[in-house]
Amino acid sequence: MTLVVQKFGGSSVADVERIRNVAKIIIREKNQGHQVVVVVSAMGKTTDSLISLAKQICPFPSEREMDMLVSTGEQVSVSLLAMALHAEGVDAVSFTGAQVGIKTDSFHTKARILEIKGENIFKALKKNNVVIIAGFQGIDANNNITTLGRGGSDTTAVAIAAAIKADVCDIYTDVDGVFTADPRIVPEAFKLPTITYDEMLELAAAGAKVMHGRSIEFAKKYHVIVQVRSSFEPDKIGTFIQEEGENMENPVITGITSNKNEAKISILGVPDKPGIAAQIFTMLANNNLNIDVIIQNASEQGMTDISCTIPREDLRKGISTSEKIVRELGARGFSYDEKIAKISIIGVGMKSNCGVAAVMFKAMADNKINIRMISTSEIKVSIVIDLEQADTAVRALHKAFRLNEPTMREKPVSCAKKKKAKKK
Amino acid sequence: MTLVVQKFGGSSVADVERIRNVAKIIIREKNQGHQVVVVVSAMGKTTDSLISLAKQICPFPSEREMDMLVSTGEQVSVSLLAMALHAEGVDAVSFTGAQVGIKTDSFHTKARILEIKGENIFKALKKNNVVIIAGFQGIDANNNITTLGRGGSDTTAVAIAAAIKADVCDIYTDVDGVFTADPRIVPEAFKLPTITYDEMLELAAAGAKVMHGRSIEFAKKYHVIVQVRSSFEPDKIGTFIQEEGENMENPVITGITSNKNEAKISILGVPDKPGIAAQIFTMLANNNLNIDVIIQNASEQGMTDISCTIPREDLRKGISTSEKIVRELGARGFSYDEKIAKISIIGVGMKSNCGVAAVMFKAMADNKINIRMISTSEIKVSIVIDLEQADTAVRALHKAFRLNEPTMREKPVSCAKKKKAKKK
Repeated sequence: MTLVVQKFGGSSVADVERIRNVAKIIIREKNQGHQVVVVVSAMGKTTDSLISLAKQICPFPSEREMDMLVSTGEQVSVSLLAMALHAEGVDAVSFTGAQVGIKTDSFHTKARILEIKGENIFKALKKNNVVIIAGFQGIDANNNITTLGRGGSDTTAVAIAAAIKADVCDIYTDVDGVFTADPRIVPEAFKLPTITYDEMLELAAAGAKVMHGRSIEFAKKYHVIVQVRSSFEPDKIGTFIQEEGENMENPVITGITSNKNEAKISILGVPDKPGIAAQIFTMLANNNLNIDVIIQNASEQGMTDISCTIPREDLRKGISTSEKIVRELGARGFSYDEKIAKISIIGVGMKSNCGVAAVMFKAMADNKINIRMISTSEIKVSIVIDLEQADTAVRALHKAFRLNEPTMREKPVSCAKKKKAKKK
Repeated sequence: MTLVVQKFGGSSVADVERIRNVAKIIIREKNQGHQVVVVVSAMGKTTDSLISLAKQICPFPSEREMDMLVSTGEQVSVSLLAMALHAEGVDAVSFTGAQVGIKTDSFHTKARILEIKGENIFKALKKNNVVIIAGFQGIDANNNITTLGRGGSDTTAVAIAAAIKADVCDIYTDVDGVFTADPRIVPEAFKLPTITYDEMLELAAAGAKVMHGRSIEFAKKYHVIVQVRSSFEPDKIGTFIQEEGENMENPVITGITSNKNEAKISILGVPDKPGIAAQIFTMLANNNLNIDVIIQNASEQGMTDISCTIPREDLRKGISTSEKIVRELGARGFSYDEKIAKISIIGVGMKSNCGVAAVMFKAMADNKINIRMISTSEIKVSIVIDLEQADTAVRALHKAFRLNEPTMREKPVSCAKKKKAKKK
């Protein structure tokens, strides 16, 4: 018997009709003889409405109380989904994160899962139930309700799949799978049949909204096979996220993403001495700020500028922390810019191919796009540019890397730095 | 230091503005040097909207899942109220029923509180917090979320007050206190300064919506002094519900109520043998039906008719149970009537006064109102009449017992059956 975890996001359960549709997808899976555990997000824009309600009452509400508030969204959708299954004569039981023992740390609104006790899930499965679990939420050591941050339902699904050793974790969403670029920006973008954890991780970090980064880390760590697929067209096979296969001919570039949700902060005129960067980033980390791209300009006359990007929603926290950094380290000042976008190209094939960055930078130059920051990893190159040029950049790159010509993807350009002999 | 429990109903927290108003009432209490524990219902019509959402999905949803669903309503309001206090610089922390250990039995949608562990409440009070607790909900032995039934937030408040030995339990509502009759039906009705637990219990059982019956039982059992007062005019003293004072000169009639939420069921042609009533009411009880008035007609030719009233919302359950009763006991059939009203007169003074029922029945006769069932207790007389005559009956009784003449209430008519010598 196959054990399947299915995850449905907010848009898949946005109204009564869609909840019924999700019930049908679940029932079809169950009728194939599988055991089904379902993780659900809050209905449609519920979480956003709750946040806006909170902000009417208190402009910067306590994070503990925010978790208490927004976790109700998933509790509503799990119970309604259980009822929709009952209406079709299928046994089902819903659980909150707390009820299935999803233990997290105490970083409210950004908690991390520490442990999941699968006990209640197995008990309910044994009674022939579809088990429906509220995504996005858990409970800390003091029984406070925590949430995993936006998109955390993916993490719940993969973590549950790992805990109960599910055969596959199907992430149902409003797209068919993982595309070479956002089809709304690049109409000729196409769906990838498979992608490696590392590529998907970089795609998520780079701003692809299809899955939450932490969930992919979990999947990679516990070898959970994930399928990203459409809840509107459940017959279509989606994109499988899995280990890099030995026989896989890796395309140079798998995908291109733009992230329009970051802001840039620069600490100006910092005394340039050893340990200063560590001090700055420790202070930022202590304020629970997720730093992304970091650059440090060449030092002049004992002073240096250090810039980084952070999620735009954390800008306020970033500014107050920067004020503190300037004061404590005797820097000259700081500046920030909200109107930036980060464009990334990702591909495992990059490891064995060179000239990728050069192609990227040339495409930018050809389109008169000024590059303001650069950051690279083994399988990714990211650049920060002006927000308003983001879509132009993505289209230019999709064309430059000939992603719209699938046959081209099979022929990576080899170069002197090539690490591995390619297998045919 | 005084320890006060305050309870705010759904209309008191219906929107952001009202939540802020509740925060002000709490802060005023706290500024007087008191420790404050607050119990809150769901915002306005939230519970009703959730129920209607559920019924769109499944006409008769599972009660476990209903509890899972509707309990989110209070979780939203407690977190928002905590934020409203934070916005005013007051420390506050919110808890679900489960988090403060409100243990109940497993009768979903109608659970009873078994135990409350006050530990977390005292811990939070020690840290100078206002403690805000979700009303209406608890958790059973298997960690399933339960609810106490409509109006259950009153029960939560009184049970919490009993558990933490609070000095007073203030029930804030949209009326100033307990009136001799519903002022919307009888404009000359007036507010009672005090009322005994027994009278309030009968009033609640008789359909007065000001407080939930079970909460008054709790208050009586644990000697919790309850004040019913207005959240819109928090300066006004309300009505105190307390033990019958030794020196209290009890008025004959304290209040008149009408209950328009019941339905009548009659089992017809039941074989009249010992134990048959027990069998019928055991079957009704096993289906968790709250029976109110019961009458059995005189037996003829070995057959009898047995009638009872039940909450109208349970009529469907009542009908299916009646079908079973008819089948199993070999009765002739059953009938039901939704268009009934129960009118009750209540007063501790009734114990030492006679002729009360006669005055009641004469008032009905004078108004051409046909009495269909009668039920009495030591301090109450209830009659069941046609629904459309309910308001006329209440007004006639308010007049007949001269409740609009406060001085008259001080002079109960003594009679031969009087049990106690009255004290001056």
